Amino acid sequence: MTATTRLVEVRTKILKQNDVTARALRERFEAAGVCVVSLVSSPGAGKTTLLQKTLQRLRERYRVAALVGDLATENDAQRLAQANVPVRQITTGTVCHLEAEMVEQALDDWRLDELDFLFLENVGNLVCPATYDLGEALRLVLFSVTEGEDKPLKYPTIFNTADVALITKMDLAAAVEFDLAAARRNIQAVRPGMEVLELSSKTGEGMKRWLDLLASRQ
Amino acid sequence: MTATTRLVEVRTKILKQNDVTARALRERFEAAGVCVVSLVSSPGAGKTTLLQKTLQRLRERYRVAALVGDLATENDAQRLAQANVPVRQITTGTVCHLEAEMVEQALDDWRLDELDFLFLENVGNLVCPATYDLGEALRLVLFSVTEGEDKPLKYPTIFNTADVALITKMDLAAAVEFDLAAARRNIQAVRPGMEVLELSSKTGEGMKRWLDLLASRQ
Repeated sequence: MTATTRLVEVRTKILKQNDVTARALRERFEAAGVCVVSLVSSPGAGKTTLLQKTLQRLRERYRVAALVGDLATENDAQRLAQANVPVRQITTGTVCHLEAEMVEQALDDWRLDELDFLFLENVGNLVCPATYDLGEALRLVLFSVTEGEDKPLKYPTIFNTADVALITKMDLAAAVEFDLAAARRNIQAVRPGMEVLELSSKTGEGMKRWLDLLASRQ
Repeated sequence: MTATTRLVEVRTKILKQNDVTARALRERFEAAGVCVVSLVSSPGAGKTTLLQKTLQRLRERYRVAALVGDLATENDAQRLAQANVPVRQITTGTVCHLEAEMVEQALDDWRLDELDFLFLENVGNLVCPATYDLGEALRLVLFSVTEGEDKPLKYPTIFNTADVALITKMDLAAAVEFDLAAARRNIQAVRPGMEVLELSSKTGEGMKRWLDLLASRQ
């Protein structure tokens, strides 16, 4: 057996372990009545800024919290804590994605039945988080207008495992000559029927529709 | 032994195999007198556009070629082929990075001694390519002003394994209120003394310095 073949086998085993943990998490979340939403994207697509604005708005009506994953630093947890909601950082070291077990450990003593929404911000990576179920009810894939219209075609797996696509930084669309129709076409080519929202955390464009989508899940 | 422990062991073995192949590649490159330059970044940081402009300019004086990695599509190879230089696409499927063996196979029948520069464009990922040596003489990490100044702190490994950092899309710096001094500080915090260039493939800002840097390597 080559090392590569064995790597695939061991990886498959880890994925199975992850699925078992994720399934248990999903049952816990459902029993507690908390809607768990995860965010995946490449680095710098605007996950943290969107989450910051979302937490600020949601906390007027709901009990919300967030777990945020990064290789290093507690920067994002500090940014999110400004929204005055419970936030915990998961520092993954060299691991390029969140795993269900990391979520389980980070939750620790949190009373899930006292939450309406729990957000999971994944490590910035448009590839590896795709294959790790975190027990979430809703997975969002974000990509910003500055990344280009072709990203859905080039990173199909992440679009295939997400429920909703958010196109972010719409305020920069004109400056980068972003072709929205082409982007939407590429998303539909990879994942026909996928729900797509356009957003700008800066100008507030699309925020109402996004918050309505979340509210409909509660 | 847990599955995770075994994964680390098998991964270490694969990395060792990769290092052996990379070392052989590096010897081949040096013997042929070709300067091999690799580019890593998150998706949409502008690797392909920069490479397109670079190939167009370099081919006036040098013999150049490129290998370009993506999970799916041949889009980038098609874009780069417009520069009228030899280009080959490496399609990695679900693999989130290039490995030395993929480079070796893609080179196939290319006469390396007939090249001055060979560029390797990695899969868009700011995490996983860090640990895979491709035998290159120069590794560049790109990050765009739209990704934010904190990326070096959050993805330290990739900055630690690269030789030069390129800050791209400088034409958008004002629109996104990019703090160049902070970005430079963060790079130096992670990798003291690292060479940093600021570029805009759109306006041409910084291109002369970048081409001079390449020429100095030939």
